[in-house]
Amino acid sequence: MDTTQGEPARLAVTERTAHRRMRENGSIERADLDAVLAAGFICHLGVVVDGVPMVVPTVYGATADTLYLHGSVASRSLAADPGATVCVTVTHVDGLVLARSVFEHGVNYRCAMVYGVPRVVTDPEEKLEGLRVLSEQAAPGQWGYARQPNRKELAATVLLALTLDEASVKASAGPPEDGDGPDGELGLWAGELPLVSSWGAPVPDPVLPPGAAVPGHIARRAGTPA
Amino acid sequence: MDTTQGEPARLAVTERTAHRRMRENGSIERADLDAVLAAGFICHLGVVVDGVPMVVPTVYGATADTLYLHGSVASRSLAADPGATVCVTVTHVDGLVLARSVFEHGVNYRCAMVYGVPRVVTDPEEKLEGLRVLSEQAAPGQWGYARQPNRKELAATVLLALTLDEASVKASAGPPEDGDGPDGELGLWAGELPLVSSWGAPVPDPVLPPGAAVPGHIARRAGTPA
Repeated sequence: MDTTQGEPARLAVTERTAHRRMRENGSIERADLDAVLAAGFICHLGVVVDGVPMVVPTVYGATADTLYLHGSVASRSLAADPGATVCVTVTHVDGLVLARSVFEHGVNYRCAMVYGVPRVVTDPEEKLEGLRVLSEQAAPGQWGYARQPNRKELAATVLLALTLDEASVKASAGPPEDGDGPDGELGLWAGELPLVSSWGAPVPDPVLPPGAAVPGHIARRAGTPA
Repeated sequence: MDTTQGEPARLAVTERTAHRRMRENGSIERADLDAVLAAGFICHLGVVVDGVPMVVPTVYGATADTLYLHGSVASRSLAADPGATVCVTVTHVDGLVLARSVFEHGVNYRCAMVYGVPRVVTDPEEKLEGLRVLSEQAAPGQWGYARQPNRKELAATVLLALTLDEASVKASAGPPEDGDGPDGELGLWAGELPLVSSWGAPVPDPVLPPGAAVPGHIARRAGTPA
């Protein structure tokens, strides 16, 4: 019997993922992690190369328990020490917090950090499925529409899998907090300036015949939040 | 006599900043670095903590030769080994490249990576100026509008300065490249799906009197690219 039934799933708290500071709103709800990961497709991968941190943006895809990253077999960031822990950070910037004092200014954001030792996916079935997850997260509908990878392309691609066992989530939202303090008397405007990301209108490849119809799964994204 | 007069400024190429791969478009033009840094205000700071990489999003400000980061004196990422090299990555995601094959899919982006050993700014004048640069990069006009930091607030803030001496820039733009190959015969739509970030309408702090006028420097940002 699953005794946790009905309880929200919680993230394990480790030395690295413990929330230390009050100002930022840490969460240990698994659902919050899932939501942050589901809302994006670009992460910043941190690895250590010759003792020095290297932070590179890359595409990811997430399932219920795994985060997939991919890259060329020639990539330096993916070829880092295979037994080493990496940090993957996914950040959504939601806007600026414009307070009465410069000190109280801030950023509204949602951020997930995942730590782990990536596993190189070698099983052909999992590799194809992981690439599908990754592709569909960034470009839903394209896995079924575009030509899928052939054997040579699969061999040229490294797929890494990272479990979501060690992760933390932080988020900040809402107005500035100095309205009720002495600075509230300054008579200054304060509030939030939202930052909105959305998909634009599709731009056809110039070599396409003029008027080539945009598939529905692409056309429908224009104007939607990204 | 300055023999480089009229020549565009170039970035020094080091082991870490050398561009290794053909697919991505590396630049060594100083102007490209400046443009990527000027276009944002959030970076991902990579540090090594106990041998493990840690990647945290944070606000930055850039001058012609220095990148400023700030944070609480209590922050773990800023309190990392003071003599250690960090990596600061600034990424702008411009859209998806939707190709005929999944393999040729990609992301259009601009990215700058800066390596260096941060210097803790202790000179009061530079500290105030660095904080002004940082504040104005995210929220132009607020340094002059909001209350500036007092002595106590300055003491609670760490300002780090990183020279722009070791940096690399990469960017990718334009349509997919498989239109002229065999996949061009598949008769599939291909092109770009732009990702657009812009500032939304200001949201007043609920504790403000109703109808409080939004200052022009804030109101004017609404609808502009972020």
